[in-house]
Amino acid sequence: MNYPSKLIEAAVQGFAGLPGIGRKTALRLVLHLVNRPLEVSERFAESILQMRRNIRSCSVCGNLSDDGICVICADARRDRSLVCVVESVRDVMAIEATQQFRGLYHVLGGVISPLEGVGPSDLRIEPLVQRVDEGEVQELIMAISPTIEGETTIFYISRLLQEKSVQISAIARGVAFGGELEYADELTLGRSIATRAPYKTREE
Amino acid sequence: MNYPSKLIEAAVQGFAGLPGIGRKTALRLVLHLVNRPLEVSERFAESILQMRRNIRSCSVCGNLSDDGICVICADARRDRSLVCVVESVRDVMAIEATQQFRGLYHVLGGVISPLEGVGPSDLRIEPLVQRVDEGEVQELIMAISPTIEGETTIFYISRLLQEKSVQISAIARGVAFGGELEYADELTLGRSIATRAPYKTREE
Repeated sequence: MNYPSKLIEAAVQGFAGLPGIGRKTALRLVLHLVNRPLEVSERFAESILQMRRNIRSCSVCGNLSDDGICVICADARRDRSLVCVVESVRDVMAIEATQQFRGLYHVLGGVISPLEGVGPSDLRIEPLVQRVDEGEVQELIMAISPTIEGETTIFYISRLLQEKSVQISAIARGVAFGGELEYADELTLGRSIATRAPYKTREE
Repeated sequence: MNYPSKLIEAAVQGFAGLPGIGRKTALRLVLHLVNRPLEVSERFAESILQMRRNIRSCSVCGNLSDDGICVICADARRDRSLVCVVESVRDVMAIEATQQFRGLYHVLGGVISPLEGVGPSDLRIEPLVQRVDEGEVQELIMAISPTIEGETTIFYISRLLQEKSVQISAIARGVAFGGELEYADELTLGRSIATRAPYKTREE
């Protein structure tokens, strides 16, 4: 249905253009804003405009940044010899949320996918080679999705860098914490047995 | 977690302040906007500002409107003798979506709820009485939620108008189309039997 008000209709279309938001949800959000003070809507719209107009890519790692270099690359306490290679900005945020990684990142911007027309030159692979050539990086941790495209990308990069003095590792695949063994897929379960690790207690 | 970018963080907070949107969904929406052209964000923000700054209440029925009188009240083809009384603007839109009702509306803005401190004077009941007094309205259809508060509100309004020459009806309660009988609650099922209607084929 079209809403009787053109103003409502335009705002509903705006929200409904976002992923995972249908017209009913969009209407609920719009009516929420109608029922809140004007400044709530003004602050919301302003935060979107400010963000979209001023957000930049970090010139080193490709992460989103308010400045030319992102806060992670600019942080002197980070281990500059360790670089985690990821597909997207969202992966950086997911890994940062674990608070387990103290190195730097390199955002590829996707994975090699001939079917979708994404080749190596569409990704930030060349800047990665440059970072390695600068000599500070000692290990690249490939934190790429375990899909065919992801494995292809890891393979491509590892071949490209095989002559260089950088160690390449991949994040562990296995049964997730809290996951039930019987629901794990066969490939993951088989691999997790093949790549089993010696049992250690936390204190060691 | 806080995102490394202040711009992203502010926009995420904006989205996460909307009902039903958590921080993870908010981040997904923000990153979607980052990956689309600037004008998508500008159009979106503008539609929200335009809507919130210029939306008004219809002076007749209380529905949301771009002008002083809403398109429904302004529509000369509508039956002005029939007024459907609803709690909220969303109910107007739900009933309009059925395309079955050709009368006008009256939005109360809620229901009487002593527990939540909502009394008759907080609702648009006085303007409803005025509309009835103007003489054009012949029937009020109460399309109010079948809750205790809703029934109280219907009772209050019907007592208020009992001396006036206006017929008051309530929307039918019963088992929903497509609903399974065994899952209907006892009150609804019992009432739907007590208020059964003669069976008619569509052609009659």
